[in-house]
Amino acid sequence: MADSLQTVMDYAVAVARKAGEVVQTALAGDRKVMTKSSAVDLVTQTDQKVEKLIIQSVKEKFPTHRFIGEESVAAGEACELTNEPTWIIDPIDGTTNFVHSFPFVAVSIGFSVNKQVEVGVVYSCLEDKMFTARRGRGAFCNGEPLQVSEQTDVHQSIIATEFGSNRDPEVVDKIFCSMKNVLKLPVHGVRSAGTAAINMCLVASGCVEAYYEIGMHVWDIAAGSLIVSEAGGLVLDVDGGQVDLMSRRVLAANNRSIAEKIVKEIVLFRPPRDDALDHKQ
Amino acid sequence: MADSLQTVMDYAVAVARKAGEVVQTALAGDRKVMTKSSAVDLVTQTDQKVEKLIIQSVKEKFPTHRFIGEESVAAGEACELTNEPTWIIDPIDGTTNFVHSFPFVAVSIGFSVNKQVEVGVVYSCLEDKMFTARRGRGAFCNGEPLQVSEQTDVHQSIIATEFGSNRDPEVVDKIFCSMKNVLKLPVHGVRSAGTAAINMCLVASGCVEAYYEIGMHVWDIAAGSLIVSEAGGLVLDVDGGQVDLMSRRVLAANNRSIAEKIVKEIVLFRPPRDDALDHKQ
Repeated sequence: MADSLQTVMDYAVAVARKAGEVVQTALAGDRKVMTKSSAVDLVTQTDQKVEKLIIQSVKEKFPTHRFIGEESVAAGEACELTNEPTWIIDPIDGTTNFVHSFPFVAVSIGFSVNKQVEVGVVYSCLEDKMFTARRGRGAFCNGEPLQVSEQTDVHQSIIATEFGSNRDPEVVDKIFCSMKNVLKLPVHGVRSAGTAAINMCLVASGCVEAYYEIGMHVWDIAAGSLIVSEAGGLVLDVDGGQVDLMSRRVLAANNRSIAEKIVKEIVLFRPPRDDALDHKQ
Repeated sequence: MADSLQTVMDYAVAVARKAGEVVQTALAGDRKVMTKSSAVDLVTQTDQKVEKLIIQSVKEKFPTHRFIGEESVAAGEACELTNEPTWIIDPIDGTTNFVHSFPFVAVSIGFSVNKQVEVGVVYSCLEDKMFTARRGRGAFCNGEPLQVSEQTDVHQSIIATEFGSNRDPEVVDKIFCSMKNVLKLPVHGVRSAGTAAINMCLVASGCVEAYYEIGMHVWDIAAGSLIVSEAGGLVLDVDGGQVDLMSRRVLAANNRSIAEKIVKEIVLFRPPRDDALDHKQ
């Protein structure tokens, strides 16, 4: 299995780079935008094109593998994490950024076996940064090893989080309340890059001490979660317990000291799970 | 004057690039951090070193020119915008980002005559993007002309703003209230890059439709304000009136339609002016 995981890894990197090129080309041209469930949750033709490209490429090489992809799920396919080898794909994480050419846009490819992420690849297309991790083998950016921040004092930290795409007033209030609590700890700063995958890579790179969010999806964080843990960080539920990748809640932190401080400030709620029968919202 | 302004412009670009190299080198090495008025408002040795480098370089070439620099003001020098030719300098905009190696860090150099910004240069060091503008001659990034977004529908917009460095609970409440109002318009997204100068360049580049903030300083926005207006955008006070660069309030927008929508959502307050006698806080 070790050898075949390296094959998967190498293939994931190659496919992510090819997908990234499509994204870069599209950004140089027109971006015909369609709206999905709301004006906030955008999907572009490129999004669908890139997911198809990734899935078709993988199917050629690994015909028995399964897929969880943002666009396939939006189109009605099941979102179920089984023990089978599964590729968990976000063709463009940061679709809103993409539509606006905001510089954080990523292709995210995770690969799980027995519900455990074994390979994680996040390609930040506009920065040309290829983040990679294999379970037990460390995390890297463009081949250089990654290490989370050594900071243990939350007052010296930067925390990344997102406003998300849900505009339900109750949800927005909870998100703002958490963010204000965190800011008032106080921390050095709060940042919103607009993509979960890149936020997690920022944790892995030591640029921010933690990232938390309630509401993102499994395809946004599957790859990033391995990159964080292989860079020496922790990936938890926002309540400090064990992470459940399908629960749409995540806290990635450089260490337990920072994680525990952040957990206390988060107003908890549970969005519908990714593997709920009616998973679309 | 036209020729000499071009000389100023060329010199500002050369100095910004030299300053950027010091920043890049420092980021590759140790970053010994000192704290200024609070843990949130950081200043590094590099900050002071880069400001000295810029001021000394400019003094050699233009011995009669005046300066307003973040570090000089922090050290007690006057912060007064007169009619004299004045260089308005932020050696590292995004100091907190710098300390954490968060990828948005800029050198900002504005040049004003008769209280009007004539030249604006923002060098985003880690992205290696040199933003430049001369009044009446357009705005550019690495030599390519910049143009603000054509979007007129605020619901299709991304808005940049910052949490700022003030942790006074009343101020934090007002900042969060404005941000929540803007998000609920709704807009596509709200982003925080952590530097006013780069936020303004994101407006000029069309990546975000608007950026507003209350609490930043003249050296954060002097250069950026010209880059935005030369890219076809508007720079206003957060109440929609005429901007006052010393008032620590700014709204940069792609057009009036977007600006008017944002103005309605901002909870107004007035921090101590940059040119107040007791300017430090």
